[in-house]
Amino acid sequence: MPGVGPRSAERIALWIIQAPNARAIDISEAIKKASAGILSCQECGFFAEEKICAICSDPSRERSVLCVVEQPTDVLPLERTGAFRGLYHTLGGKLSPLNHVGPEDLRFEALLRRIKEMRPAELILAVGTDVEGEATASYIVHLLEGMEIRVSRLAQGLPAGFGLDNADEATIANAYRGRIDLLINRAGKS
Amino acid sequence: MPGVGPRSAERIALWIIQAPNARAIDISEAIKKASAGILSCQECGFFAEEKICAICSDPSRERSVLCVVEQPTDVLPLERTGAFRGLYHTLGGKLSPLNHVGPEDLRFEALLRRIKEMRPAELILAVGTDVEGEATASYIVHLLEGMEIRVSRLAQGLPAGFGLDNADEATIANAYRGRIDLLINRAGKS
Repeated sequence: MPGVGPRSAERIALWIIQAPNARAIDISEAIKKASAGILSCQECGFFAEEKICAICSDPSRERSVLCVVEQPTDVLPLERTGAFRGLYHTLGGKLSPLNHVGPEDLRFEALLRRIKEMRPAELILAVGTDVEGEATASYIVHLLEGMEIRVSRLAQGLPAGFGLDNADEATIANAYRGRIDLLINRAGKS
Repeated sequence: MPGVGPRSAERIALWIIQAPNARAIDISEAIKKASAGILSCQECGFFAEEKICAICSDPSRERSVLCVVEQPTDVLPLERTGAFRGLYHTLGGKLSPLNHVGPEDLRFEALLRRIKEMRPAELILAVGTDVEGEATASYIVHLLEGMEIRVSRLAQGLPAGFGLDNADEATIANAYRGRIDLLINRAGKS
């Protein structure tokens, strides 16, 4: 188990042996249930207890925006921000020829099917900023060319709470290229 | 000296004693010269060997874009990207009431004077993304309201080579809010 070293494992093992019987069996049941009971949402691929996950079946979520992420685990940090209220689509990874991950290994077909069904106004690509993430974003843009949809991508730039002195060159170059306007007065427009 | 611990210091000291005389004296002279010879550029405040720094006196630099940074050291990472070809203006710090740094402690007046003289088309704020950096950016925008200039700011978002799983919530929220369009087809515009 991640984060459990040999010493912790020993301590847990001893606790299981010494704890009142019911407690250890409760945990055993919970683990079995979690392992068997967590499915992939048939719509978005996020973790689900039923066929459709809690997000896809939540009527308060906007159905006009679809956010594409690489893995189901990427939904969690986005949900924690509370900023996004639409639905997700997990690809199950990113394009990576070196690791033999091609378009047929990712859920692109399901994405196209959902876009045709849902007809969202905007598709937000929340993929990583590494080479594979870039390739995956480009591939999706290519897939959707000509379709009636707006495709956007998470901004690249300085992380929150950072100064220039602790950012790397590629990040600063991206932040420079993607700079945003704060004030445009007459001369700036002309 | 930064990065020199007691053991390294001892090794250096022994090397100085044992090295041929001329070598150690050369270093001593170089340190004295660097310490006395590096000035602040009268224009931008960056490190300079003469009154005007190498960047300000370089005729190939664009004079229509001015990039505002907190410290002279912030010029170096921006220069390494090779993306920016304009001139700089160093403020000498950032607004920070908690550390008793107010507008009068920073080079805002020199900035206004330079803007009036140079009449740049764009002012790029390359300040940090922490609270003090935000306050400094807001203050500059406030100073320049009504002036004929475009003011922009380095993008905030995911750093280069990052996935969602290793970015913090505030960064992801900024990246979401600042998302950029990759493709706008008819439906997206309407």
